[in-house]
Amino acid sequence: SNCPAPADGLAPSKTCHTFSTVNCGCIYSNNPSFLSCHRLQESLLSSSSGYSNYRGVLNWCVVMLVLSNARLFLENLLKYGILVDPIQVVALFVKDPYNMPAVCLVIVSNVFVLVAFYTERRLSVGCFSEHFGLLVHSINLSVILCFPVAVVLMVKSVTPVGGAVALGVYTILFLKLYSYKDVNKWCREMCYAKARSLGVGSQVTYPGNLTCRDLYYFVFAPTLCYELNFPRSPKIRKSFLLRRLCEMVSSARKSRFSQVEVVHVPTIASKDMDLSRMVEHLLRLAVPNHLLWLIFFYTFFHSAMNFVAELLQFGDREFYRDWWNSETVPYFWQNWNIPVHKWCLRHFYKPMLKRGVSKWAGQSAVFLASAFFHEYLVSVPLKMLRPWAFLGMMAQLPLAWFVACFLRGNYGNAAVWISLIIGQPFAVLMYVHDYYVLQHREESAGVGPD
Amino acid sequence: SNCPAPADGLAPSKTCHTFSTVNCGCIYSNNPSFLSCHRLQESLLSSSSGYSNYRGVLNWCVVMLVLSNARLFLENLLKYGILVDPIQVVALFVKDPYNMPAVCLVIVSNVFVLVAFYTERRLSVGCFSEHFGLLVHSINLSVILCFPVAVVLMVKSVTPVGGAVALGVYTILFLKLYSYKDVNKWCREMCYAKARSLGVGSQVTYPGNLTCRDLYYFVFAPTLCYELNFPRSPKIRKSFLLRRLCEMVSSARKSRFSQVEVVHVPTIASKDMDLSRMVEHLLRLAVPNHLLWLIFFYTFFHSAMNFVAELLQFGDREFYRDWWNSETVPYFWQNWNIPVHKWCLRHFYKPMLKRGVSKWAGQSAVFLASAFFHEYLVSVPLKMLRPWAFLGMMAQLPLAWFVACFLRGNYGNAAVWISLIIGQPFAVLMYVHDYYVLQHREESAGVGPD
Repeated sequence: SNCPAPADGLAPSKTCHTFSTVNCGCIYSNNPSFLSCHRLQESLLSSSSGYSNYRGVLNWCVVMLVLSNARLFLENLLKYGILVDPIQVVALFVKDPYNMPAVCLVIVSNVFVLVAFYTERRLSVGCFSEHFGLLVHSINLSVILCFPVAVVLMVKSVTPVGGAVALGVYTILFLKLYSYKDVNKWCREMCYAKARSLGVGSQVTYPGNLTCRDLYYFVFAPTLCYELNFPRSPKIRKSFLLRRLCEMVSSARKSRFSQVEVVHVPTIASKDMDLSRMVEHLLRLAVPNHLLWLIFFYTFFHSAMNFVAELLQFGDREFYRDWWNSETVPYFWQNWNIPVHKWCLRHFYKPMLKRGVSKWAGQSAVFLASAFFHEYLVSVPLKMLRPWAFLGMMAQLPLAWFVACFLRGNYGNAAVWISLIIGQPFAVLMYVHDYYVLQHREESAGVGPD
Repeated sequence: SNCPAPADGLAPSKTCHTFSTVNCGCIYSNNPSFLSCHRLQESLLSSSSGYSNYRGVLNWCVVMLVLSNARLFLENLLKYGILVDPIQVVALFVKDPYNMPAVCLVIVSNVFVLVAFYTERRLSVGCFSEHFGLLVHSINLSVILCFPVAVVLMVKSVTPVGGAVALGVYTILFLKLYSYKDVNKWCREMCYAKARSLGVGSQVTYPGNLTCRDLYYFVFAPTLCYELNFPRSPKIRKSFLLRRLCEMVSSARKSRFSQVEVVHVPTIASKDMDLSRMVEHLLRLAVPNHLLWLIFFYTFFHSAMNFVAELLQFGDREFYRDWWNSETVPYFWQNWNIPVHKWCLRHFYKPMLKRGVSKWAGQSAVFLASAFFHEYLVSVPLKMLRPWAFLGMMAQLPLAWFVACFLRGNYGNAAVWISLIIGQPFAVLMYVHDYYVLQHREESAGVGPD
């Protein structure tokens, strides 16, 4: 007469809940569902389960990356001893440490910031007409794009890495000052023929924002879109800062090891070889190159940007969205780099639509501009004009069409990943191959640098 | 007077929604929030964002695994040509293909299934008393555990892999028949002194379940807990079956390559060496060993079990839960192997609690039983008794305490991963090291097998 073992499984199923309250007896023999410990359900990893919490898998990737690098570090330490050479790191940026053109270029960029600032000041008090202001801004922005190109191409001592960093800084500055000019123009248009009003509460209003301090805050803030009142975080969290700093330091060490692998391959790849060997080398290059890109992504878009944002108490930390889940190619391009995507939408695509350009033409224009900047940031530092970055961007169009037509869900996601893992090193291989061939030819002709 | 560019960012923020409906003018200069394109928010990868959808990262892992294996495959093909040798695969299981003791052992296991079946039949009609039935079952279950041990230890031609498979089959059978005996006993206890009732609708009731067909369905079903009426899936999906089959085939190929790496290391490791070299070898072994375990997990717990379940229209596909997110050690052990965990809870832990054993003692007993079976499945096939698997399980206790006390959230999760990646190969290294040393000694003494 005493109650038998409940015999339910782990999860208290609905039928089991009533177990302790009802009378035991042969009634259960007619309805032995309380003996059950199984339910109709799918496995979590089946796509039909709809389950998607894989935070642990991300942690796994980080742990694996750290452990493999620890092993490589130990192996190198045992084989060669300590090899860290800070001079070598500096040599990546400058060939002659006493003549650092890249650093000078970055310092000179302040001139363009100040030109934009004083132009806006003049415009706000009416000293410059709108047309003259636009002319000054246009000249200023064009010089920002052309001046570093001239310097990088003419000064021999600029290394590819130093040149790329300098060009990157100038490109960012170009986008920022373009946004600054646009927003201030919108403010003037709104206040057109009205009396200026002072700030309400803590909010800054139009002419009040035209201070050097405000502009430099924007220049250093991790965003490309100017705004009069950025959202601010309440305080600087010291532990957050410290963690981001540690991430940046350890990423720099990790990327050093992957770099070695990436840099060593092309010397082999430059020799003649058949297709299967070519494919094998491409795959061998693909994985470290991809890991390097992922480390770069995390270090730059998460650690570094959050670090700067925390220091400046900049509130909007959306520097990327969930591009890792992208099931279509456009989703990836719209979500991996939010600052640039935001800028393109706000200052390029929407104004074009407003002027009556069709959606399709607008998208193509954004795409072409993006391809141009990719090419600009790669060709100029390497001092050779090759269409690979441009073609790589263009290849996204048929790829996007293919993925959208034929692949859904996890298969689409896998296709996007494969295009990232394989496509990128293909372009990189092309550039590095050409660069090595060019250098080799120059050296054998006796006109090589150094 | 016409409305200026909205200048909102991507996401239509709340203030932007009203833009097109209100009058434009200098009122915005007082309240220029519509110019804003930034919101106060955290980055997705920050743990404070609470975001956890990383399905894409899982796909990334799969793509990386496939690509690295494709590269390795191509490299091996280029170096050595096609090396697939089905005889070698068979040789893993049996040394003499015409004398397959492991296969015979598995076939013989049917005897024990039939003994359990006829005992239950007798018990149901009252031919056997409860006590005699329990005695027969106890003897049967003990023989199931001891008989294969005797065969594996005495028959020379059983290889370690063949022995492990046979012992695995017998262990599973032991757990299944224990559950069968328990559930039938519960049914009898419920119907004690009552008239037997026939099945209601499609549900099977107690003595009606005692058919050979029902028992063999349970023996082949991917669960260890017997139930009179398993939930059934409505139909066999052919595409699902095909996908699981492809996964199993490709996993088998993948694991072959990782195996090579795992097997090659211990031959080096068996020589004397200093601590830093030992750590380096451990780390070198850890990654392929861990990948092998992950491939095994996916192949066995997802592909194979789902394949069998689909064939048998077995409805409950919960073979694992989200152990990859486990932030504590117990959470991992409770969620990575649901069939065993379910069995332990239903047939071991809960009955003990019912008999008045304390919770703590019950948990320790489950833990000890688990450690015993780990040791049983490793020591016997290798024909050497070493405490490494047992100690490995026991080391989980201080680890669990440490993680629970000092680590939270993602750090706890990382600690669980590290214990998996490092702890497992440590035990494996111990066994393989001892096994090689033993074999080497036997061979040099001239008494080695073959």
